[in-house]
Amino acid sequence: MATEAQTPPHLTPLQLKDEDNKEADKQRKLTASGPSPDPLAANYGEVPLEELQSKEVTGRIWTEVRALTEELKDQKVLVRGRAQTVRAVSKKMAFLVLREKGSTVQCVLLVAPDLVSLGMVKFANGLSRESYVDVEGTVSVPSSPIKGASQQVEIQVRKLYCISKAVPTLPINIEDAARSEVEIDKALQAGEQLVRVNQDTRLNFRVLDLRTPCNQAIFRVQCQVESIFRQFLLSEGFVGIHTPKLIAGSSEGGSAVFRLEYKGQPACLAQSPQLHKQMAICGDFGRVFEVGPVFRAEDSFTHKHLCEFTGLDVEMEIKEHYSEVMDIVDRLFVALFDSLNKRCQKDLEAIGKQYPFQHLKYLRETLRLTFQEGVELLKEDGIEIDPLGDLNTESEKKLGKLVLEKYGTEFYILHRYPLAVRPFYNMPCSDDQTYSNSFDVFMRGEEIISGAQRIHEPDLLTTRAIACGIDVKMISTYVDSFRYGAPPHGGFGVGLERVVMLFCGLNNIRKTTLFPRDPIRIAP
Amino acid sequence: MATEAQTPPHLTPLQLKDEDNKEADKQRKLTASGPSPDPLAANYGEVPLEELQSKEVTGRIWTEVRALTEELKDQKVLVRGRAQTVRAVSKKMAFLVLREKGSTVQCVLLVAPDLVSLGMVKFANGLSRESYVDVEGTVSVPSSPIKGASQQVEIQVRKLYCISKAVPTLPINIEDAARSEVEIDKALQAGEQLVRVNQDTRLNFRVLDLRTPCNQAIFRVQCQVESIFRQFLLSEGFVGIHTPKLIAGSSEGGSAVFRLEYKGQPACLAQSPQLHKQMAICGDFGRVFEVGPVFRAEDSFTHKHLCEFTGLDVEMEIKEHYSEVMDIVDRLFVALFDSLNKRCQKDLEAIGKQYPFQHLKYLRETLRLTFQEGVELLKEDGIEIDPLGDLNTESEKKLGKLVLEKYGTEFYILHRYPLAVRPFYNMPCSDDQTYSNSFDVFMRGEEIISGAQRIHEPDLLTTRAIACGIDVKMISTYVDSFRYGAPPHGGFGVGLERVVMLFCGLNNIRKTTLFPRDPIRIAP
Repeated sequence: MATEAQTPPHLTPLQLKDEDNKEADKQRKLTASGPSPDPLAANYGEVPLEELQSKEVTGRIWTEVRALTEELKDQKVLVRGRAQTVRAVSKKMAFLVLREKGSTVQCVLLVAPDLVSLGMVKFANGLSRESYVDVEGTVSVPSSPIKGASQQVEIQVRKLYCISKAVPTLPINIEDAARSEVEIDKALQAGEQLVRVNQDTRLNFRVLDLRTPCNQAIFRVQCQVESIFRQFLLSEGFVGIHTPKLIAGSSEGGSAVFRLEYKGQPACLAQSPQLHKQMAICGDFGRVFEVGPVFRAEDSFTHKHLCEFTGLDVEMEIKEHYSEVMDIVDRLFVALFDSLNKRCQKDLEAIGKQYPFQHLKYLRETLRLTFQEGVELLKEDGIEIDPLGDLNTESEKKLGKLVLEKYGTEFYILHRYPLAVRPFYNMPCSDDQTYSNSFDVFMRGEEIISGAQRIHEPDLLTTRAIACGIDVKMISTYVDSFRYGAPPHGGFGVGLERVVMLFCGLNNIRKTTLFPRDPIRIAP
Repeated sequence: MATEAQTPPHLTPLQLKDEDNKEADKQRKLTASGPSPDPLAANYGEVPLEELQSKEVTGRIWTEVRALTEELKDQKVLVRGRAQTVRAVSKKMAFLVLREKGSTVQCVLLVAPDLVSLGMVKFANGLSRESYVDVEGTVSVPSSPIKGASQQVEIQVRKLYCISKAVPTLPINIEDAARSEVEIDKALQAGEQLVRVNQDTRLNFRVLDLRTPCNQAIFRVQCQVESIFRQFLLSEGFVGIHTPKLIAGSSEGGSAVFRLEYKGQPACLAQSPQLHKQMAICGDFGRVFEVGPVFRAEDSFTHKHLCEFTGLDVEMEIKEHYSEVMDIVDRLFVALFDSLNKRCQKDLEAIGKQYPFQHLKYLRETLRLTFQEGVELLKEDGIEIDPLGDLNTESEKKLGKLVLEKYGTEFYILHRYPLAVRPFYNMPCSDDQTYSNSFDVFMRGEEIISGAQRIHEPDLLTTRAIACGIDVKMISTYVDSFRYGAPPHGGFGVGLERVVMLFCGLNNIRKTTLFPRDPIRIAP
């Protein structure tokens, strides 16, 4: 990146170009000045908006905060970031902690003749938290470690300009939003009551909340999950596709969909790309995947349900058996977990600092149990569940615990589910029609993936739709897709935000969603 | 991939396992048999559905059609694909062209004692086009080139099973759908009337239409465009994000949005991720991008507008000038075009075979002209347009032609647009408020990208919103995002399908959209 410079050249200050020095002085309304005119007044102050309207390209080079290391000792640097905190030591000295993308550096303002004036220190002290500033100065290396910042160097400030002022009183302070529960409890034991920012306040002021090191890390990890997902599938011959979200009628023939009027026709938002990704298989793409929004108008107020989330969907031809789909799940997720642990170490640390978690336990080859084996495991532990029903959240949790004890993994596949609890398009087993060629995948005791072999034969698909109470007329285009020759195929779907939530042991899907939508929240 | 084998092992036929031979005979309803019982009857026929319901994992290995080369001469292979055409030469001989993902191979059925029976040839001749079949046989290399297939080897068929029958009469034939206009015209000159499949019929039966080599290639190219876009931006420090598509009120404050009821609240579908990607910048991500659906309820019936498309969106902090955003556009697209020409050669050839096109002409460094310079170029050519208005489709085309003649490029940036024709959030120029820090990018004379520096100062943003007739109350969350310190920033948006359309010189956005949505089409 152009802003990372190992050897910053001599810096031309924004306000001290010889040719327009006087003009600049006139234009600038400097808010801070001493009792007598400050000869260093041009070295600090608020930058008027017009200077920020793409006035000119100066060629100046900015250094990123995270790039500030001992190697830059004694060099001049120009840094842009937020005034996270300003601490006045005296009239003559102040510390400014500058933050950029979660990294912080301590900037020192100490009055010195011809370098730093009382006016500049006063200006620094008057900066509101979270204001955007440009700092110019020299890198120094203090003799003792710096506690209040991520970078172990300081900047001896020579110039300080505010380019965007924050309101004086913020609805939430980043320090408060970044605090862990452990810290709050510890302080409480010492008799100090620290501010705890609740989830709703965080979401109301998401642009502030997102600035914490933990949130910066969460969304960088999320980006990595998607990238690894894509890279793995591309390397396996999958084609990335985009299916429509605007659907005639109601997708998958039922339940809680968002309805709308589409140019006079009734329409709804896709609850999943299921039908269209299968149509892409009928269209000869062989193996496809999609990353895109999924809409569910369900009234779920749980920690893991939202009305809109990002679906990672896969569909593929199979030659013989739905285990071919489970093979992809196995290799994809082992590769994903390995990569995250390797590539995202710093981000995972930042998340753990606010929300401590244990690294996910997973096997080199993912454990596969049949649903019946799962029922047996629960039975052995004294829990009776309907062998032809589904697992509820409680039995999922319990089974997760039993599997962890017995097999040492928090990630496993449960397959061959009872047909009755699966969608109509799941293929029944050949040897026993009460079961289906389907699977769910669990992570830390919660379901994250649902997959199956699909019915590729139009007559059986129609029969199953009717048996499930679906209006066949509504899905005729879908059923017809299989009348022109269709290969056996299967696939699965997984929620991007759930993968991040469960990998990082977080307790709420809202923490891993940039701007969450639940039954009562549609803003910001 | 597991299905690609250089050395296929001995194949266990599906229907001839010693232990369940008799059982299998009973179960299978073979449709084709000679007048007397055929001793080779088990070597061909329809596979009953239950055999395809994940009955067992046999370990058999399939070879992909595109992997069938001379190196496999005399080897046994097992191939799955579609019966594209069957040509009966006599009662004793037939040719079957098998297609898989656009690649084709000729399969030969020639009656021979103990190997191929009259019954098998009859069965092959009875296969409906596009049915899915498994072919087992030996690879042979004919002495003369094969015209009707992509692979230059043949398979001497020994076993032939139909795993999914297509209806006998298809609504469109793949051969017809794959035909170029050149071919049709040529035939017409020779007095032969060939079938021309129109765009609407193609879209009505998209699962068939998608099977043509050209369509297979178009969507593989589209997948590459997205991958290269992502890879480039990730390498430049951008973070991939997902913003909500369900928005309270109406996004960007206006025009043609799809409205819906969200749990009793009025809501709409996002017309772009504009507001939220800017909020992500205020949330300190520095540089973000998004790939996701964009919804426009406009009544446009042009070759380049759809009601739903895939937006590629970018937003980034800028230090001084919106040229930093144009720098990213320049390097991103030059890298994109270079990569496509290099990586997608075969696919581009397949597209050109049906829809001939010239490779895009572009410069190593993208040409940048100001809007005023564009107006001048048109004026020199005798075309007067409003210097403070916008270009219409006609003047865009014309300007594209003039730029190509003068600068030798079909890809260029036009910047510093009149403020009046830009959205309210575009930053005015510092030296002249009638212009804006904005740009459009053109490809083969059509606009594909729109970008700008954004207003990061809440008061100016409010003023501009009011000036543009926008209800400020509706965008208060957005405006408030800039009250907590906001960096100067800018970005751009581009339609994925338009990039593919214009790069390949195609004439309709419906050709590069998997399942297009326009004002009258919402299915399939």
